[in-house]
Amino acid sequence: MKIAVDVMSGESPPKTLIQGALKAVEESDVEVVLVGDETTIYKELEQHSQSYKQISVVHASEIIAMDESPAKACRKKKDASVMVAGALVAKKKTDGFFSPGNTGATLASSLFSIKRIEGVKRPALASILPTVKGYAILLDAGANVDSDPEHLAQFAIMGEIFVKKILEIPEPRVGLLNIGEEDIKGNELSQKAFEIIKTIDFNFIGNIEGHDIFEGDVDVIVCDGFTGNIVLKLSEGLGSVVMRLIKNEMIKNYKYRLGAYMAKSALRSVKERFNPATYGGAPLLGINGCALVGHGNTGELATKNAILTTAKMARAKLDKLIKKSIHLHTLSTG
Amino acid sequence: MKIAVDVMSGESPPKTLIQGALKAVEESDVEVVLVGDETTIYKELEQHSQSYKQISVVHASEIIAMDESPAKACRKKKDASVMVAGALVAKKKTDGFFSPGNTGATLASSLFSIKRIEGVKRPALASILPTVKGYAILLDAGANVDSDPEHLAQFAIMGEIFVKKILEIPEPRVGLLNIGEEDIKGNELSQKAFEIIKTIDFNFIGNIEGHDIFEGDVDVIVCDGFTGNIVLKLSEGLGSVVMRLIKNEMIKNYKYRLGAYMAKSALRSVKERFNPATYGGAPLLGINGCALVGHGNTGELATKNAILTTAKMARAKLDKLIKKSIHLHTLSTG
Repeated sequence: MKIAVDVMSGESPPKTLIQGALKAVEESDVEVVLVGDETTIYKELEQHSQSYKQISVVHASEIIAMDESPAKACRKKKDASVMVAGALVAKKKTDGFFSPGNTGATLASSLFSIKRIEGVKRPALASILPTVKGYAILLDAGANVDSDPEHLAQFAIMGEIFVKKILEIPEPRVGLLNIGEEDIKGNELSQKAFEIIKTIDFNFIGNIEGHDIFEGDVDVIVCDGFTGNIVLKLSEGLGSVVMRLIKNEMIKNYKYRLGAYMAKSALRSVKERFNPATYGGAPLLGINGCALVGHGNTGELATKNAILTTAKMARAKLDKLIKKSIHLHTLSTG
Repeated sequence: MKIAVDVMSGESPPKTLIQGALKAVEESDVEVVLVGDETTIYKELEQHSQSYKQISVVHASEIIAMDESPAKACRKKKDASVMVAGALVAKKKTDGFFSPGNTGATLASSLFSIKRIEGVKRPALASILPTVKGYAILLDAGANVDSDPEHLAQFAIMGEIFVKKILEIPEPRVGLLNIGEEDIKGNELSQKAFEIIKTIDFNFIGNIEGHDIFEGDVDVIVCDGFTGNIVLKLSEGLGSVVMRLIKNEMIKNYKYRLGAYMAKSALRSVKERFNPATYGGAPLLGINGCALVGHGNTGELATKNAILTTAKMARAKLDKLIKKSIHLHTLSTG
């Protein structure tokens, strides 16, 4: 199992990503290909006395920055680390890749070189969210801006397979994010998507609403990429806002130092649960290979977990499973 | 200033709503018309030794339940409390009305009897959200399932007037909820809405993202009703989830009773900020009168505040101001 890691595109320095990769190879038999400026990479590797048989390096001379326009940058910078990492998967040199940088560029690189699975209309970005009871995935979290009902049905199929194989939930409950629980609720898109999704052979629990997302009673949350991206960013933002408000309340009362200390530890553990590092990033589903999109400030732990998650996706042959299910669904709906 | 209150439709008993109304008349010169089963209402009023000159009663023989289909129920139950309260506004017997029940029924009653302002394509439900710095409004929070760009532009105009007059923010900052900050980001709807909204004569700060909602740097958040409703319910849900997670962490450690006590008080104050009672409900903007939609479990305080907010809207002649601005905007865009 070989995973390419773009060590240049994140907000964290290459050093952090390389150290995360070294942790991953220490803890598993996964081989890692570090992609980026080779001088920088070798300089970092020299800091480590141990030799790493599972590590190799592929040079890439350019970097796509966080704020560059993805489509334009990918066309112009063919030798950008994220493009080179994607190409390694396309050429079957690695089984998957991880990039911690510009989400749009990782998507563009994947679509450009790895390409969509035949029959998949739109690949989707799946975001792994913490719930009161465990984890759920939400997709599309922003790979597509406009979607049609059949796209949403495909998101449901791809998400269900991911949750079953990677989060290891045997019978995932699939829900459609909507503005009411009744079947007929919602906008045109969600009403039509409901009609298609209910014919698919999995555990569809129907419409769910905004307040159901974090309760842990649904494992796969399906929505269009516009709604999904707003939900994702809102969740990240609101968690931090609630915590800031609580902190503000706590420090109002100087008498209770112990209470403040205690609350601080509790806040820290909760923040940890909202930390995207557990799985290391958001999988891109629907391409001929495995790709994981990291958060900008991916640290060592997140990098290690991202590599292991990508390897797990590759080991499960997630892309082949998705291809098969999408094909079956297309056959049954014509 | 006279406000009709539907005391029958909420999850709270009529007693609670009537007591809230009595508080409102005690604290202000607003007159309140209690709408609902007169036997129930008079029985409750008899419990109070004081006589209330500002209170009157209008009988309504039916109730629309929380789970009834609004359109159907409103057609069938012409004498439902929410329909009678709406009709009082339409007949100019009161200056506004408040209902704590079925949101769809309150919308239907408003559209049926009070009617849209001429030129307003779609009335919008505005939700008042707490932020780190104060309050902001989000609209449409779910009055409409599908919207076009011109609808969003009108939501922006109506929301800006509400915030200026009712939340008393002199120069409200208006933002369009989107999935990126750059002008060209988003789905077709938000891109086209951006083009229209930027021509309107107010303080448009451009696109905002999910994580900006609670930061307090935008006062009017514009989006379609599908997205808005999901944001609203998610926010209500996530706040409670974060708090449950923190509580779970706190009780893990039995040694720190004081800390747990302290955290509990902080949690309670934060929960208070997320309590919709401060303004008592969500205004429906774009109708020929003033209507406030309450939350299902509206208590005494929320009822009092809802009445005072509705009266403030009526006193500011919010509907007339909206009519004028929509007319001006229509003239300029043709």
